Amino acid sequence: MSSKNLKNPGNRKISHFGEKKLIKRLLSRSRAFQPNSPFFDEFYFKSLNDDAALIDLDDKYLVVTSDLLLESKHLPAKMSAFQKGKKVVTVNVSDLAAMGAKPFGFILSLGLPQDLLMEEYDEIMEGVFKTCQSYEMGLIGGDTNESDELILSGTCLGVVDKNKVLMKEGARPGDVVAVTGPLGVAAAGFEFLLSPLSVKKNLKEILKPSTIKIIVKHALEPHTRLKEGILLAESGFVTSATDITDGLASEVGELVEASENGAGITILETMIPLIPEVEEVTTALDKNPLDLTLYYGEDFELLLTIKEDAFDQLKDKIGLIQVGVVTSSGKMEIVDKEGKTNILKPSGYQHFK
Amino acid sequence: MSSKNLKNPGNRKISHFGEKKLIKRLLSRSRAFQPNSPFFDEFYFKSLNDDAALIDLDDKYLVVTSDLLLESKHLPAKMSAFQKGKKVVTVNVSDLAAMGAKPFGFILSLGLPQDLLMEEYDEIMEGVFKTCQSYEMGLIGGDTNESDELILSGTCLGVVDKNKVLMKEGARPGDVVAVTGPLGVAAAGFEFLLSPLSVKKNLKEILKPSTIKIIVKHALEPHTRLKEGILLAESGFVTSATDITDGLASEVGELVEASENGAGITILETMIPLIPEVEEVTTALDKNPLDLTLYYGEDFELLLTIKEDAFDQLKDKIGLIQVGVVTSSGKMEIVDKEGKTNILKPSGYQHFK
Repeated sequence: MSSKNLKNPGNRKISHFGEKKLIKRLLSRSRAFQPNSPFFDEFYFKSLNDDAALIDLDDKYLVVTSDLLLESKHLPAKMSAFQKGKKVVTVNVSDLAAMGAKPFGFILSLGLPQDLLMEEYDEIMEGVFKTCQSYEMGLIGGDTNESDELILSGTCLGVVDKNKVLMKEGARPGDVVAVTGPLGVAAAGFEFLLSPLSVKKNLKEILKPSTIKIIVKHALEPHTRLKEGILLAESGFVTSATDITDGLASEVGELVEASENGAGITILETMIPLIPEVEEVTTALDKNPLDLTLYYGEDFELLLTIKEDAFDQLKDKIGLIQVGVVTSSGKMEIVDKEGKTNILKPSGYQHFK
Repeated sequence: MSSKNLKNPGNRKISHFGEKKLIKRLLSRSRAFQPNSPFFDEFYFKSLNDDAALIDLDDKYLVVTSDLLLESKHLPAKMSAFQKGKKVVTVNVSDLAAMGAKPFGFILSLGLPQDLLMEEYDEIMEGVFKTCQSYEMGLIGGDTNESDELILSGTCLGVVDKNKVLMKEGARPGDVVAVTGPLGVAAAGFEFLLSPLSVKKNLKEILKPSTIKIIVKHALEPHTRLKEGILLAESGFVTSATDITDGLASEVGELVEASENGAGITILETMIPLIPEVEEVTTALDKNPLDLTLYYGEDFELLLTIKEDAFDQLKDKIGLIQVGVVTSSGKMEIVDKEGKTNILKPSGYQHFK
């Protein structure tokens, strides 16, 4: 009997690997198969690790991203059909925002359950159209299939000047680490929405109605920082950037890993922007608000590193909040409230259940 | 009680509408929502009805198409993991072939079941990589999700000279209607593969092994007519084109509907190219081979209309087979073996069950 037969087959299931590991495995294998073509210069490869693919168009890059949403995984039951349509556009535009690119076209592949009502289909599409319109882009193509659950697979096209594009790599020791807005708000919304009925009833009595409104809106109708991404790209001072879809810790990990000059990032717990509404929810649920900001996704704020001088100059104009610094340690660290430095683990996006 | 409440709710389910009707409904609504932008000229809109979207790049069009495959609907159980990966690239490249565009990049969004084995994942990706490589393009981006069933959502990017692009509209009375190869071969393969066990056992005794090999290969590893599409576009003589994914009748309907000069198409039953292997299968199953060519998809041959003089000149070089003529009737017709002209109904793509 070979040792192979003795292995636990569970270890070979893809559920044993995380999503990011699967993507990295895919990309590392991808290089071996790339054709010999002028398209495939080094930079073209590099973009495989980024939020979107870059294609050379003389002085610009065509930026293309693709994000697929499944009803059971990404669309909570509380979401309206309009909000579902809005979200598939939002998640894709957010990837373009992270690169400073201006979107111009959206393509939607749909999987539709047989018993979906036409009104609901129309409402989903209204969410898609109106959100595309709000970003001044059009729906330019699509594909429709019958499926067991609702599937919204979007592809977004955009452009950015070559010398302006924001990428994950480039953080340099001494840079300021900043975000574009408060974190954990959508997470608080999901904690409320997905809590058991008895807990929710209780929360409704404890929380201010305005708090519930704010956190639920962030969870069900996330916005993107497109305008900010474009302004940041145009400034020329941003050294690296990504959007926060998987929690701050995970995204910090992305920037550190993409960095080629041994850069590390140290986050200061006291600097992480929390709004009172998030603290109200975590207090009511006896949770640590830090967990919601570090390990819970769906914020869609931008995380960026920026030259120190430029940060002071741009923070008010764009609405940037410092959360840490780029170090030369090569490590991810977090300084807690007591001033103690700990290793920051990148793990952790929790899809809502 | 309003009359709305008296309506049968079944009529409002999307299953009551066909896929093509849903797309048309979507596109007709899309126009109302398009932003005011230089991107959205008339031509840009037109491409919404075509196999892929066109985006203006000076003297070229960027061509973008998106096709989503679901294990339960598009990937029969007999397909190997490699063939599944191959197919998602093939169906997307075929859309580019139909427009005469050269592919250069592929983006893959995956939905992966938790219990998928890593070996199977790797084999799917090998199918994707090797097929991309065979078309001299690279995998340039992707997204991975956990899902209940395997989902392969592909986006393919290509380019074509503006004055060469092939579109669905443009057929003119007097043009020859042609295809690039025999029809119904994949359909025969699916009839064999998906037949009940007892029938299949019988078929294995009746059919030549070489026949089974050919029809199964067409069903499980369809090829595209990319080289032919590019040559046809470069010739400058093709007036309209599409790829045959939904059966000849349905695609003829697409060309007639897209035509703006009242063109009709008449197909001659005796001219539809059948290979002996297809006839062998339909004889064994007591089916009409015509049904397999007209109403069964997955052929991935090209259907085109071409100026009469040019057809004679190009037919041997590219391997074109005439199947009919463009008329001025505005109708879809078919002339049967007895010379009788009947209306050709466009309905009918049967997804394999």
